[in-house]
Amino acid sequence: MSEVAARLAAAGYELPPAPGALGSYVPAVLTDRLVFTAGQLPLRAGQLLASGIVGAEIDPEQARACAEQAALNALAAASTVCDLDDVERVVKLTGYVASTAGFTAQPSVVDGASAVMLAAFGEAGRHARAAVGVIALPLGAPVEIEIVLALR
Amino acid sequence: MSEVAARLAAAGYELPPAPGALGSYVPAVLTDRLVFTAGQLPLRAGQLLASGIVGAEIDPEQARACAEQAALNALAAASTVCDLDDVERVVKLTGYVASTAGFTAQPSVVDGASAVMLAAFGEAGRHARAAVGVIALPLGAPVEIEIVLALR
Amino acid sequence: MSEVAARLAAAGYELPPAPGALGSYVPAVLTDRLVFTAGQLPLRAGQLLASGIVGAEIDPEQARACAEQAALNALAAASTVCDLDDVERVVKLTGYVASTAGFTAQPSVVDGASAVMLAAFGEAGRHARAAVGVIALPLGAPVEIEIVLALR
Repeated sequence: MSEVAARLAAAGYELPPAPGALGSYVPAVLTDRLVFTAGQLPLRAGQLLASGIVGAEIDPEQARACAEQAALNALAAASTVCDLDDVERVVKLTGYVASTAGFTAQPSVVDGASAVMLAAFGEAGRHARAAVGVIALPLGAPVEIEIVLALR
Repeated sequence: MSEVAARLAAAGYELPPAPGALGSYVPAVLTDRLVFTAGQLPLRAGQLLASGIVGAEIDPEQARACAEQAALNALAAASTVCDLDDVERVVKLTGYVASTAGFTAQPSVVDGASAVMLAAFGEAGRHARAAVGVIALPLGAPVEIEIVLALR
Repeated sequence: MSEVAARLAAAGYELPPAPGALGSYVPAVLTDRLVFTAGQLPLRAGQLLASGIVGAEIDPEQARACAEQAALNALAAASTVCDLDDVERVVKLTGYVASTAGFTAQPSVVDGASAVMLAAFGEAGRHARAAVGVIALPLGAPVEIEIVLALR
């Protein structure tokens, strides 16, 4: 088990298996020392944890759990092109939250994803972050997470 | 004709002329070996192919054609700062789709943009990708596409 | 006073003090020569300049002023990890504008942020840019701005 997987497990998170290729795009690309992942949905064993709009069908706690799962999937995506134990820094995390016009607590939702990065990498997991509310996401997912990592 | 333009032509796509500067921002920036393009709309000869919201006035097929055109424009934007034949890899593609709250097939729309990258670069065109649904885009465009490229 | 702060002051802008860390994420990350900032809101002295949706409660002029302030905050965020006088180029600026479905002038809003980059860095401030309309932003902010900078 990698150090990252062990740290995640100690925090109660399970690193998913690395996804296969998806057709016209791939889970992640490594260029020089940077890894860019595809946007990840809160899928677990092929099923969305929840679907709908935060502020309507989905409450903030469910959405935060979705952000955690999507972040775990982002790490699994990154692991297709690097060893997660070689991550020097989580550079950037972007969280898209499917929101009603009146829901403005996107940061508390995306905190779920940030917590996964801290659990996985400690201080090196502290990242720049953007959280925005979008009208809809693929498959009706409440959250989509993408990350940029720098390797040693 | 560049190799990339020839491959695009063979796939039935026409690489647009490189756009001029746009005022306070530019079509693309090259830093070290990475090219970041501005977000590109489905303009052809100065006109939007379509305008409106996908799931309302715009159907998925029209939206996919818009994604193709915006992707071609992204390559034209990149060509202002590099020779497209020097592209080592398409690193990241982000597709913003102007959507109703009920439209969740953003990936099938953005597949149009991904297909252009595969046509242009073959295996090197396989990229990490995010597809999200947004409430509105500049000029009423149904789709906006931006890319990050790595050069040899 | 740094050269950048002086140029901003000459253009009538005030560079805010560098923000503190925010908990699970940070204002900016430096990796090699690239600085990625967190998404920044139009906060001044801890208060939003305005809150609401552009095209409804917020008019384009107010939104443009919000984009300026958020861009100044993005520079302050970057200054936590670099000397702004070492910026070689503003690489990318992304502007998220909280919009009604009918508001499609996001570029004129985000021009406020672009103007700040030109004031701060002159020619080196000309960047690739994406402007998109989103349904909601943290705290009800009308605009969120993030930047990528390259250092000398």
